[in-house]
Amino acid sequence: MNFLNEIAGEYPSAISLAAGRPTDRFFDRLHPQALVDAFARYEAHACPHGNPAKSRAGLFQYGRTAGIINDLVAAQLRADEGVPASADRLLITSGCQEALALCLPALCPDPADVLLVCNPTYIGATGVASMSRIEVHGLPGADLCAEIEQAVERLGRRGKRARALYLIPEFDNPSGRVLDEPLRRALVASCARHRIVVLEDNPYGMFRYEGQPIPPMAALDDAGCVIYLSTYSKTLSPALRMGSANLPETLFGDRRASRDLFQNLVERKSFVTVNTGQIAQAFVGGILLQERMSLQRWVEPIAAWYRRNRDTMLDELQRVFADASATISWSRPAGGFFLSLDLPFRFDADAVAECANEHGVIVMPMSFFALDASQDRRIRLAFSAVEPAQIAAGIRALGSYVARRRVDETRSTRHGAPVDA
Amino acid sequence: MNFLNEIAGEYPSAISLAAGRPTDRFFDRLHPQALVDAFARYEAHACPHGNPAKSRAGLFQYGRTAGIINDLVAAQLRADEGVPASADRLLITSGCQEALALCLPALCPDPADVLLVCNPTYIGATGVASMSRIEVHGLPGADLCAEIEQAVERLGRRGKRARALYLIPEFDNPSGRVLDEPLRRALVASCARHRIVVLEDNPYGMFRYEGQPIPPMAALDDAGCVIYLSTYSKTLSPALRMGSANLPETLFGDRRASRDLFQNLVERKSFVTVNTGQIAQAFVGGILLQERMSLQRWVEPIAAWYRRNRDTMLDELQRVFADASATISWSRPAGGFFLSLDLPFRFDADAVAECANEHGVIVMPMSFFALDASQDRRIRLAFSAVEPAQIAAGIRALGSYVARRRVDETRSTRHGAPVDA
Repeated sequence: MNFLNEIAGEYPSAISLAAGRPTDRFFDRLHPQALVDAFARYEAHACPHGNPAKSRAGLFQYGRTAGIINDLVAAQLRADEGVPASADRLLITSGCQEALALCLPALCPDPADVLLVCNPTYIGATGVASMSRIEVHGLPGADLCAEIEQAVERLGRRGKRARALYLIPEFDNPSGRVLDEPLRRALVASCARHRIVVLEDNPYGMFRYEGQPIPPMAALDDAGCVIYLSTYSKTLSPALRMGSANLPETLFGDRRASRDLFQNLVERKSFVTVNTGQIAQAFVGGILLQERMSLQRWVEPIAAWYRRNRDTMLDELQRVFADASATISWSRPAGGFFLSLDLPFRFDADAVAECANEHGVIVMPMSFFALDASQDRRIRLAFSAVEPAQIAAGIRALGSYVARRRVDETRSTRHGAPVDA
Repeated sequence: MNFLNEIAGEYPSAISLAAGRPTDRFFDRLHPQALVDAFARYEAHACPHGNPAKSRAGLFQYGRTAGIINDLVAAQLRADEGVPASADRLLITSGCQEALALCLPALCPDPADVLLVCNPTYIGATGVASMSRIEVHGLPGADLCAEIEQAVERLGRRGKRARALYLIPEFDNPSGRVLDEPLRRALVASCARHRIVVLEDNPYGMFRYEGQPIPPMAALDDAGCVIYLSTYSKTLSPALRMGSANLPETLFGDRRASRDLFQNLVERKSFVTVNTGQIAQAFVGGILLQERMSLQRWVEPIAAWYRRNRDTMLDELQRVFADASATISWSRPAGGFFLSLDLPFRFDADAVAECANEHGVIVMPMSFFALDASQDRRIRLAFSAVEPAQIAAGIRALGSYVARRRVDETRSTRHGAPVDA
């Protein structure tokens, strides 16, 4: 992401359709007095008849490595996301990224262990793998179950073994894609058969703009193979750094193995961040109590805002690229923060800089999330952290860049240079 | 630490001289309104003429991986601890433990790389090494510089290389020991010669009860070999999860190498916790601003309290063990949270349980922090998180346990059993 920050710093007036951050618009609900109220609400809950001074002293002290608001978070995951979460197998983490940083090396301790990911995928997953020296194997995603079978076989021939599969089944980052329920069920069955643990990441699940909700894989998991990763960065605020990992009741049918994995994660956490900040846990706990363990009402205005942004982006794409529909296409996401746009030419780091510098819009090459060249003609467009007027102006600017590139390409083709230059 | 929690849970009425936590007594200075004030103070500082709503939105958003209060923390480290800290080489971490979890694998990326530690040492350091599969080599600590020379030579014969040395030079956990200034200088020279990076951890430096302060190794480092680790867990509160790592201006004379290491740590952090919670950073920043970048005044009452606790413990030890001075001895720490007590018999996990169950006091075997059997007849006594009356009662209880053990040992010796049984 450093490259993106550099570009944003270099062209501060450019519109960014690159940043997949949540909107700032609703953060004022976390104004200081609201945090104080949340804190007090959590304190009253945690210590209903006890000594408030003693309870507060406990909050400001070191505390349980696995967390203190596990029951509240589990209740919210059950209510809002249909996940069979349980406080005793849920680990509170310093943001969902820490859950990934703990789970991947715990699941892939041996040099022969391999992580499967979709290609493209969220770089927070491949980044942990690279840092932990875990081999990553990419799945193109056209037929995931078959690709898993192939991967298992191919890896096996090299003495390697697929141990985990990282996935965002709902409104994927970066692709925006949704896996349908039959595919989710088939994936659980396939992973169970090969004893592959699914790390189901669901940061965008509460932002659905149309259509019926699909159960998360953790809710369809009758085999004990799905660890469900969750975050409050998109619903509440990234500055709280609050996430969780919920383990299945059994690991491939073995209750003891799931408990052992939980203990392994707790021990790892004790050596990474000791525990998750308890003041921040009290804030989140207080908000969950206030919202009666469902953030549905809380996210409503945010989701409405994102829906409007998505519609603005889709309308503008239609307006700008209608004439080019033979060579330029884009996805229509039913939720989340992103859509993907296919172009008839390569879009690389130079293109980002050129587009920002000459047309005033920053977009994200899909190749930044890819393991190979398959995404070189695709970009990710984020509509979460921009105003509708910026979206419209940004897509028009992108349109003018694309038009110029196409003229250039036509010219260079005429002069005999390769189309992909 | 799980064993200790279990023991504490099993014998809830036992006095704990085992927990090295800060006292709860002064946490009320972080009452919710104080946090709100701190937050407002930081906001005003961060955005003196700007739009407060915009500034707040930025605080609740994702943000700079290396941190946002680096200038304030660097100023405090310069003022209070004499460390030549600089915002541009200081990484804000989610507690000091995260700094260790980032630094050790960055400094020891190769299987041949070895971490040197004192024996015994803080298990947070050896725990990261074990998790990251970094070989640990213990130094007995009687003549550290000579031991480093020997270690380098011995490791070299095995194709290994000492890359880092973890140390708490001031009021060590667990030993309570202080390294004097000549030794600190000699260690810097020795480590510079062998290109060993010193990870100087200083959680207790602001709690000196007598004698003259000794400059931290980072202040004596003219070779560019000391990374200074700091935490607000003991001065403010562990629940803030706020620490830092300050890199030297050059790494062994190479400015670029230090910058590269900093970038490496920032990248690792982005894959572990993304960034440190900005709400918590704003709290700490606001308190630092309120205290004019020195926590000297803030810690005064805490240090006075610890000094009194230490005196109580020393007085009681003198009272209880005066007659046994030939076989039982203890250290007299000039600061920090711990002293160490030498016993004429082994003190292991069974002894902890027996002592807790039959005598109502929980103490920490030094062997829990050790790499070998050298610490088997030693315990760590913490006086930070107990009341003076508990200290006195706890030491008396320990006295009665020790007396019984000595009678038992005498009996079994008479009957021919080994003294160490």
